[in-house]
Amino acid sequence: MNRESLKAYIEQIRPLNREAMMQMEQYLDGLTKPVGALGKLENLMIQLAGAAGTVEVKTQPKVTVIMCSDNGVCDVGVSSCPQEVTATVTYNFTRGITGMNRLSEFAKADIHIVDVGVKADFSHPLIHNRKVCYGTKNMAIEPAMTEQEALQAISVGIEETEKLIEKGYEIFGTGEMGIGNTTTSAAITAALLEEEIIKVTGKGSGALDTVYHNKVEAIKTALKVHQPTIADPIDVLAKVGGLDIAGLVGVYIAAAKHGKVVVIDGFIAAAAALVAYKLAPITKAYMIASHLSKEAGMALILQHIGLEPHFNLDMRLGEGSGCPILFNLLDMAQYTLLGMGTFEDAGVDKSNYMHIWK
Amino acid sequence: MNRESLKAYIEQIRPLNREAMMQMEQYLDGLTKPVGALGKLENLMIQLAGAAGTVEVKTQPKVTVIMCSDNGVCDVGVSSCPQEVTATVTYNFTRGITGMNRLSEFAKADIHIVDVGVKADFSHPLIHNRKVCYGTKNMAIEPAMTEQEALQAISVGIEETEKLIEKGYEIFGTGEMGIGNTTTSAAITAALLEEEIIKVTGKGSGALDTVYHNKVEAIKTALKVHQPTIADPIDVLAKVGGLDIAGLVGVYIAAAKHGKVVVIDGFIAAAAALVAYKLAPITKAYMIASHLSKEAGMALILQHIGLEPHFNLDMRLGEGSGCPILFNLLDMAQYTLLGMGTFEDAGVDKSNYMHIWK
Repeated sequence: MNRESLKAYIEQIRPLNREAMMQMEQYLDGLTKPVGALGKLENLMIQLAGAAGTVEVKTQPKVTVIMCSDNGVCDVGVSSCPQEVTATVTYNFTRGITGMNRLSEFAKADIHIVDVGVKADFSHPLIHNRKVCYGTKNMAIEPAMTEQEALQAISVGIEETEKLIEKGYEIFGTGEMGIGNTTTSAAITAALLEEEIIKVTGKGSGALDTVYHNKVEAIKTALKVHQPTIADPIDVLAKVGGLDIAGLVGVYIAAAKHGKVVVIDGFIAAAAALVAYKLAPITKAYMIASHLSKEAGMALILQHIGLEPHFNLDMRLGEGSGCPILFNLLDMAQYTLLGMGTFEDAGVDKSNYMHIWK
Repeated sequence: MNRESLKAYIEQIRPLNREAMMQMEQYLDGLTKPVGALGKLENLMIQLAGAAGTVEVKTQPKVTVIMCSDNGVCDVGVSSCPQEVTATVTYNFTRGITGMNRLSEFAKADIHIVDVGVKADFSHPLIHNRKVCYGTKNMAIEPAMTEQEALQAISVGIEETEKLIEKGYEIFGTGEMGIGNTTTSAAITAALLEEEIIKVTGKGSGALDTVYHNKVEAIKTALKVHQPTIADPIDVLAKVGGLDIAGLVGVYIAAAKHGKVVVIDGFIAAAAALVAYKLAPITKAYMIASHLSKEAGMALILQHIGLEPHFNLDMRLGEGSGCPILFNLLDMAQYTLLGMGTFEDAGVDKSNYMHIWK
């Protein structure tokens, strides 16, 4: 995929179907409750109707695409974890023992593990080998990726998502595993939002002060040396991003193109959402924020795109862990709103409820 | 129950079991994730351990106690809904068609409907007749309740909760149905937090401007005429509160006394939590906030007690609707955290994860 074919692909994304949204809203307003009283649960149903183009919305089956890759910037000590943990946890996703496995099982959601650039080889049927390269370069010295590598990783995201859509998945989530990826996410956020580095750089899964200092310095150097073009999200992604983030950009774009919603997990997934949004603002219509992570940059990204998180759980695990929690809320919203009684069923005069602010 | 016996009852509430909490924390810190990375999901498990006095926590079975009653203040037009809706919706809870029914079904949680003062008679096995009186008096003219009525309604809450504990319920939620009860809740909040009335008065399930004006005026008059003693939560509750709120105060107190956690739904449940907290600050240890409702007073109450909501869903349905959503999160937290692999299972050196802020 090159810039032109990506552009052509993005141009096929359609806006949400207004008619289906209005039909869903009308249906919801006839239920035995004050208009709009179930708040964001109602908004989710309206968004699903708009994406699907019908009020017959489906919240199953669901899958979180977990993009796994390594980051060269780990060379300068931006994480308390050794880089090998990327490969270990990627493998552990196949063993059902991670937090993400358990959360997904509870939500009856699948995971789809993609090796888009881990610095190790796997041979496991559940790890999809779509390796672009063995990790990125150290952005504190040279650009993390070439433009071609970044585009290839986006293609991986698009192709894997299209395969999953062919298999019948309706709802998508965004997960990742890559030691050092809060650093790359902060670099992307600082560049695309033109924000101060310290305002968007957090402690990741748990950084010491020296590590935090290294993160900030690495981002500062990378942005200064490579001077990514802020108006060109691909250039920013390639120079200071990661293969995992690029892969997730592809997930957002492909899901939107096929009329499927995508749940944003934490900061890394949000940084990918920001790149997708900058490439194609229309992708926003298909995005759902799950939780607000502990990373300060995340709130700024959601605010910029114009999305509101549903949960505030002080989580900072990554892996995609916010997605199954939101999936579960979607199921609950669907079960509740598509099964409630109407005003007629309830024996309540609807006119008493109608003069109500939304 | 009189003031003395209530005081004696409250004095039996024990603090959370520190040892069980530390054991749970140690267990959680051994799981394959950065320490504390599942944030509030971990806090919930620690709180449950403290309440139960053991790390063998149970999140089933669960029940939301729905206190139903009428408010005399409806006489001065504080709601867009006619007062009869209290009885209609109370009855509809038995029919499985309300939002609360569906949410609870999804969460595999029961509801326990208590008529603590509806201005109508029911004859249904699922509506527990514990009527103190046929609704409160209009607080804009006379005190809503006598002190004895308020204490009796608290007793109803205590007794119903103890019955449910005998039946084996582990987790409690707080629901209500009572047209006009955002007005009484705002009055209690204004008094107990010594806040300006307009800061704690919202639009309820949906009030027109004239109705909103009537709410503010009714509260202003009630507080001015009855002069409740701010340092005496029972006096405030009796003069400007409601039977539903008093009943829920009993739920908080009895659950805490028996080492069970209680989930707070929206503004009305929060006003009851505030009264319970003022009567016995130790009840806070057993409280769990679910969502932040659209009512402005709710955030002030949670802040005052020192509780953080888990969801931000712009809901304003009442009925207890936040409880099943939080119940479901509890189940998810338990399923995830009590089933994840340890660092040993994961083949990750724990020392790499240990120097981490919490």
